[in-house]
Amino acid sequence: MTKNVGILAMDIYFPPTCVQQEALEVHDGASKGKYTIGLGQDCMAFCSEVEDVISMSLTVVTSLLEKYGIDPKQIGRLEVGSETVIDKSKSIKTFLMQIFEECGNNDIEGVDSSNACYGGTAALFNCVNWVESSSWDGRYGLVVCTDSAVYAEGPARPTGGAAAIAMLVGPDAPIAFESKLRGSHMSHAYDFYKPNLASEYPVVDGKLSQTCYLMALDSCYKLLCSKYEKLEGKQFSIADADYFVFHSPYNKLVQKSFARLVFNDVVRNASSVDEAGKQKLEPFSSLSGDESYQNRDLEKASQQVAKPLYDAKVQPSTLLPKQVGNMYTASLYAAFVSVLHNKHSELSGKRVVMFSYGSGLTATMFSFQLRDGQHPFSLSNIATVMDVAGKLKARHEFPPEKFVEILKLMEHRYGAKDFVTSKDCSLLPPGTHYLTEVDSMYRRFYSKKAGSCTCENGSLANGH
Amino acid sequence: MTKNVGILAMDIYFPPTCVQQEALEVHDGASKGKYTIGLGQDCMAFCSEVEDVISMSLTVVTSLLEKYGIDPKQIGRLEVGSETVIDKSKSIKTFLMQIFEECGNNDIEGVDSSNACYGGTAALFNCVNWVESSSWDGRYGLVVCTDSAVYAEGPARPTGGAAAIAMLVGPDAPIAFESKLRGSHMSHAYDFYKPNLASEYPVVDGKLSQTCYLMALDSCYKLLCSKYEKLEGKQFSIADADYFVFHSPYNKLVQKSFARLVFNDVVRNASSVDEAGKQKLEPFSSLSGDESYQNRDLEKASQQVAKPLYDAKVQPSTLLPKQVGNMYTASLYAAFVSVLHNKHSELSGKRVVMFSYGSGLTATMFSFQLRDGQHPFSLSNIATVMDVAGKLKARHEFPPEKFVEILKLMEHRYGAKDFVTSKDCSLLPPGTHYLTEVDSMYRRFYSKKAGSCTCENGSLANGH
Repeated sequence: MTKNVGILAMDIYFPPTCVQQEALEVHDGASKGKYTIGLGQDCMAFCSEVEDVISMSLTVVTSLLEKYGIDPKQIGRLEVGSETVIDKSKSIKTFLMQIFEECGNNDIEGVDSSNACYGGTAALFNCVNWVESSSWDGRYGLVVCTDSAVYAEGPARPTGGAAAIAMLVGPDAPIAFESKLRGSHMSHAYDFYKPNLASEYPVVDGKLSQTCYLMALDSCYKLLCSKYEKLEGKQFSIADADYFVFHSPYNKLVQKSFARLVFNDVVRNASSVDEAGKQKLEPFSSLSGDESYQNRDLEKASQQVAKPLYDAKVQPSTLLPKQVGNMYTASLYAAFVSVLHNKHSELSGKRVVMFSYGSGLTATMFSFQLRDGQHPFSLSNIATVMDVAGKLKARHEFPPEKFVEILKLMEHRYGAKDFVTSKDCSLLPPGTHYLTEVDSMYRRFYSKKAGSCTCENGSLANGH
Repeated sequence: MTKNVGILAMDIYFPPTCVQQEALEVHDGASKGKYTIGLGQDCMAFCSEVEDVISMSLTVVTSLLEKYGIDPKQIGRLEVGSETVIDKSKSIKTFLMQIFEECGNNDIEGVDSSNACYGGTAALFNCVNWVESSSWDGRYGLVVCTDSAVYAEGPARPTGGAAAIAMLVGPDAPIAFESKLRGSHMSHAYDFYKPNLASEYPVVDGKLSQTCYLMALDSCYKLLCSKYEKLEGKQFSIADADYFVFHSPYNKLVQKSFARLVFNDVVRNASSVDEAGKQKLEPFSSLSGDESYQNRDLEKASQQVAKPLYDAKVQPSTLLPKQVGNMYTASLYAAFVSVLHNKHSELSGKRVVMFSYGSGLTATMFSFQLRDGQHPFSLSNIATVMDVAGKLKARHEFPPEKFVEILKLMEHRYGAKDFVTSKDCSLLPPGTHYLTEVDSMYRRFYSKKAGSCTCENGSLANGH
């Protein structure tokens, strides 16, 4: 039967338009370091008026198919995770069908999965389960995470971002699921939600959201540990995984989260923390759950103890979330992409623990086992194809004033009809899809910038 | 391994508030028979100001667990299909978690699936695949379809409706999937969509939507036939299934759809149609696809030829869709519920072909194989528990004026905050959840009408 089902190939797209967090601090009159150290963020990507979650997903799917040489007819399931609602009924998946219909392939299961930043994980699980089910027809699954995170003026605005990620799913994958190693925590909460339907901006209770995230993390970690222990007959600890990858609304929360796992290991008396570290954290082990989430001394001490482990097991995942910002459903997978980018040649045989969180709330901790894989589905080729360094280098920094101006225009256009965009795609890479018009019936029209990417064994040639 | 994965148990809830289509015709000044014969509809349920898709799904899930004696801890996956958006980020599934958290069960995978009326089918497929996957942990899956279909004043208004359906998923099911017998047709279309985010009402191109539906039906049927023929080495025709159940926006489209399958069989020279029928329809077989969708003579002739087959294989599924109206994601499964209600004692060994359609568009034709099953998961107990006749009988007919007045109030409240409802639950059955308040932070509060249903081996006792 099917073995090692997981991710065979990946690609990522983020808008080339971005704003530096340091410049945004000055513009917003925030204290120096509030965004860069306080939030831990470096830069933030955003969609200009010609991009949206549909154009980004068209771009990344086309690119993945081309770069890995996948015939669109080979796709049997396509699922999208997103929390950026452009239409409340018509799924983003149906927009992507344009790519496949051209080749006469309409027989593709799957729709959109939605709950805040968790939809991509739900879509990925669904695709993997399909490959393992009796209804699998031997073709590939394809998962797309696409989001544009924008916030009203105020303290949450620097926690925006935008990106789309595509993942090809099938058996014999270099990024294989350890399907029994999984713990979920789902609950009813109002930490971050979007009840104002006419606005693109969410309602956010920042403090509650952070507590919900950390509580869900604790709960998922405990479940994963207990499942591992039942399966393997021994205790699980941080030492049993090589990398920990977190959903990253902003980097500071990732730092806190990993420190929380270290604290968990101390409370569980696991072997991952040395004696000195244990001594520092044991005094806090009598705190109740609620107290422990609010205790600043514990936060500080656990981050200190966690630091060397953080540098080794977490830091390699932080590049894109810090540079691009919160990408909602794509955020966790962009963090994983960062690990592939930084460590691709030394990942074979490693275990990566992933923590997916979506407000509202839904959370799962799960595990990947990595193997070299065979070309074009090898870890090193995936890293080459994604070309993270090249994409970061090719970006265009906008001054904060221009960023704010664009967000104002987008506010005005959210849910609107009967307008044309500037159609200015001069900043976009060749092969990028962009929005040209929304007609009087709200129908959306997109074009593709000439000089599309063509595939030559996984390397990317930009023709014109 | 797991065998005969499918639906173990079902329950349905629809609001007791309804309006007669005949009365609506008079009120709207429509010609007599326009809604009753033209659309083929009898009655329409609607949510009053104390009900919505969240309250209906809370009601139906609680009811299913109670009536079949399922411990909430036995649920390992919960998925919701809906196109009625109350929040653009927080899933309906997270509201339902309240039921499970009470029992300490937070480890429940799954979120909401969305594409128009197809989301419930996507959720069902996902749950079935989970049970067949390596990540299944032995617990039940639970699928919920919940929708409130409302339209702006005009010709589409009589095609509304409202309901929620819950389905328990697991192995050894009386309603088992034939997983290899499945054909999908997915495409990019603007036939029905909800781009006006501030309004609950969709944008509908009625004529295009009907053509899209019939084209997708043709395409799915052809695929299902060709898959059957590869698998079984013989031709598939209407004769090979006992019942055909369609997504039902209004009954007239179901009549046209089945006639279309009969026409397909004639064109394919299948044995299901007698010589007289063939002679009547063969003259149309040279029409191009497009022409054939518009040809009124073909429509009339094929419905005439199909009539005896329709009465036997389709009519038993039409009760609830005609009485309750379009229930969007719940519509197809309410049609299937009607078959269980009408034929439960004679369904063992029968094959039921299901056609799910969601505008935008996504469509799948798939197949169930029915078996008696073991109590409480037997076809006859499912029919008893659902008590369709009792629920229909207990409804309260509203005059059209009152219906229009309620829809005006709901328009006003759509996406609103800071209001309390009448909290009037006098018309609701005991155990029904209802909306009491939306606070200044858009948080929604629900109560449950006293005298909840308690379970006694699948029979329902209403205490007070």
